[in-house]
Amino acid sequence: MPKPWATLGVDLHLEPTGPGLRRGLTDALREAVRTGRLAPGTRLPSSRTLATDLGIARNTVAEAYADLVAEGWLTARQGSGTRVAMGAPPTPFRRWGSAVVPPSGTAPSRRERHRPTYDLRPGTPDLASFPRTEWLKAARRAFTSAPNEALGYGDPRGRIELRTALAAYLSRARGVRTDPEHILICAGFAHGLTLLGTVLRAHGARTVAVESYGLPPHWNLLTAAGLRTQPLPYDELGTDPTVLTDEDAVLLTPAHQFPMGAPLHRDRRAAVVDWARRTGGLVLEDDYDGEFRYDRQPVGALQGLDPDRVVHLGTASKSLAPGLRLAWMVLPPRLMEEAVSAKGGMDTCGVMDQLTLAEFITSGAYDRHVRSARLRYRRRRDALVTALAAHAPEVHVTGIAAGLHAVLPLPSGTERTVLQAATWQGLALHGLTFFRHTAALAEPLDALVVGYGTPPDHAWAGALEALCRVLP
Amino acid sequence: MPKPWATLGVDLHLEPTGPGLRRGLTDALREAVRTGRLAPGTRLPSSRTLATDLGIARNTVAEAYADLVAEGWLTARQGSGTRVAMGAPPTPFRRWGSAVVPPSGTAPSRRERHRPTYDLRPGTPDLASFPRTEWLKAARRAFTSAPNEALGYGDPRGRIELRTALAAYLSRARGVRTDPEHILICAGFAHGLTLLGTVLRAHGARTVAVESYGLPPHWNLLTAAGLRTQPLPYDELGTDPTVLTDEDAVLLTPAHQFPMGAPLHRDRRAAVVDWARRTGGLVLEDDYDGEFRYDRQPVGALQGLDPDRVVHLGTASKSLAPGLRLAWMVLPPRLMEEAVSAKGGMDTCGVMDQLTLAEFITSGAYDRHVRSARLRYRRRRDALVTALAAHAPEVHVTGIAAGLHAVLPLPSGTERTVLQAATWQGLALHGLTFFRHTAALAEPLDALVVGYGTPPDHAWAGALEALCRVLP
Repeated sequence: MPKPWATLGVDLHLEPTGPGLRRGLTDALREAVRTGRLAPGTRLPSSRTLATDLGIARNTVAEAYADLVAEGWLTARQGSGTRVAMGAPPTPFRRWGSAVVPPSGTAPSRRERHRPTYDLRPGTPDLASFPRTEWLKAARRAFTSAPNEALGYGDPRGRIELRTALAAYLSRARGVRTDPEHILICAGFAHGLTLLGTVLRAHGARTVAVESYGLPPHWNLLTAAGLRTQPLPYDELGTDPTVLTDEDAVLLTPAHQFPMGAPLHRDRRAAVVDWARRTGGLVLEDDYDGEFRYDRQPVGALQGLDPDRVVHLGTASKSLAPGLRLAWMVLPPRLMEEAVSAKGGMDTCGVMDQLTLAEFITSGAYDRHVRSARLRYRRRRDALVTALAAHAPEVHVTGIAAGLHAVLPLPSGTERTVLQAATWQGLALHGLTFFRHTAALAEPLDALVVGYGTPPDHAWAGALEALCRVLP
Repeated sequence: MPKPWATLGVDLHLEPTGPGLRRGLTDALREAVRTGRLAPGTRLPSSRTLATDLGIARNTVAEAYADLVAEGWLTARQGSGTRVAMGAPPTPFRRWGSAVVPPSGTAPSRRERHRPTYDLRPGTPDLASFPRTEWLKAARRAFTSAPNEALGYGDPRGRIELRTALAAYLSRARGVRTDPEHILICAGFAHGLTLLGTVLRAHGARTVAVESYGLPPHWNLLTAAGLRTQPLPYDELGTDPTVLTDEDAVLLTPAHQFPMGAPLHRDRRAAVVDWARRTGGLVLEDDYDGEFRYDRQPVGALQGLDPDRVVHLGTASKSLAPGLRLAWMVLPPRLMEEAVSAKGGMDTCGVMDQLTLAEFITSGAYDRHVRSARLRYRRRRDALVTALAAHAPEVHVTGIAAGLHAVLPLPSGTERTVLQAATWQGLALHGLTFFRHTAALAEPLDALVVGYGTPPDHAWAGALEALCRVLP
């Protein structure tokens, strides 16, 4: 019988009895954090209190807490107890490496001391390769020639220089059809998705179809906006949008499914646009790493098929660095004013970075940087494939045609063990389960999602070795 | 009898009959925009439709629309009809000069063609004096020495370098008592106030006391967060917080009342902190231009009296430039985690500007810039006082001890005429009525609020002349 769990404040829909008690409790708590039922920052009851409340042994609770701290879902700090990790559930986009830096002079926090030696979680590019010199040159050129009014309260859509540069670049590189008037600059993809959630809700939308595999924080943003997320089936051809009926919108990663790695099947690209035209639904195209395709021509943006039905979302977080906090939405004209209103009617991004990125793109530095990054990531991918072939020939790596991560299928039932081993080895890794929607219409798969963008060059060989060590 | 005004979608609480019909209609529409009942971007019915609906002459509606376009509340563009100006009601912080810039090659919009020759609205500093060279030097130093992880997904509170620099600066310059752990960087004051609105609502707050004179967009942000704004009385000593009872919070400009210009009276500073301690209420201290005080020592931050009861909000928008989109909140420790959650659990400000501002402050460049800006603004203020003494000796300018604006009292009933004359002269001006809360507990006063920060140096003499021409 489910217990009331009064001290936790949420019902975990769990029957914590029998032999799998610790695992059941761990899974239920993880699920509550992932779905947002336990909000970031929430202080959990002490293991003693929760154990009493559940009528189970205190050690079982303590062990479940420790597991979740090791996995990054919870934090345990001296004096502040056990809490849900800040900043929504830990995601591939919340890195240990960029967590709270203690002011100089204070002792490193427990979190700092536990920083992993290698980080192979997807989501962040190689920050050591950020083109600092070129960026500073572009900043100087952009800032020196900017008119004074650029320093004032600006156009809520973002600087015209950047919107103009993006309109040309996206047309050329991604096949996007737009003009500077219909681009909205935002402070990262999450900001853009939040704005779209607000716009959709204002239109009375209730349900957004999502992929069975994707990023829980993105689904949480939609949930927070008052929308229900409903996963689409996932089969051997990838995400299947042909089942769409009366959903109000669909969020997809058409160029490079995240995290599985394949582009949306050609027939299904057509199907999703047909659905949108037929029903008035909106397609949200998350084009997070469309630039990084290695073996053939990039897959063009879905938006090019119907600019009135598809919102194209891009970001500088993968091609340059997340710290810039710059992303963009290409909007159907009818949604522009509403999106601007949702943004609060004012620009929220610093003008300096906007002007610099505009200059970076128009001067050709962006193209040069993407080319050189593509080469570097491709080499890493090749090294990953070679190392796996040599040390773990039974692992058939997939999703390697593009992007900054690959999927390593594991024997059924081993993902959890492999992740635990990785933690012990000081290797930060994510399993595929992390990216699976709780209502996913797909067979559960055990796999690792390995991001090869994050480690700096000097750490890459070591990270690969550590990875091979933990594979079964 | 009030008409239904079905085509407008809102009830204007107006009886549009009798001789003051046009003025009544204009006032009611302005009020509906200011209070947000007519949302930014809303398309108004054609003058013909509304006239029919109201049973009045079409010309009367057309003239009211034209008045409000001239005042900046509405926009009229070819093909898109008459709309409520984007980005919330026009405010002193929404400048004509920084409005939508048409892409090169297109004809200037009607808005552009009507750009005023001189702009004396308060809210923006002299952008031509932004220390570009020093800023770029700081950017280079900061960016060259930043660790790679600075480019990743960062601490949701903002970069530690900036929080550390601000903690030291605010303590020294403003008497704020805090540490880097309790400062939250945000993308401008409005962003910070929005986050606080969310935090207050989550605590079940319903009412925020505000000043009878202030910024309608700030009140609108609180309203949008689900809070009621309740103005405090304003008397010869300024804002009177001694009447506070069971309000949940109070928003004040203690160092320099905006727009009236006096600091909060000494006894009343103590009273507001007493109230907060007694009732558990929260004080929101808007310290927008605390650095610019000319005739004596700056008034210290109210936060210094009780860091557990006062949230101190500061911004780089007045001391440097709004385009940086950088502001900060100093929070009582108990509210930090909630404010971080409200921020979405992630940093939203570009790291480059944050690192640059940190370097700018710690290197002493910020102090030098503030000193030189203070001198420049003081000279402008002196020129304003001198010009008024010569050309309009009956105007007794007030609020000149600090900040970037002054209040020029006008004979009762003349504010509107003066503003109209200013529009004809190509002079952008705000009357005090713009800043008066609709439920203000204060006698209505006719006055101009003159911002002397905005015009570049070369335009300052011309702006002063134009101002003297329109005074009665």
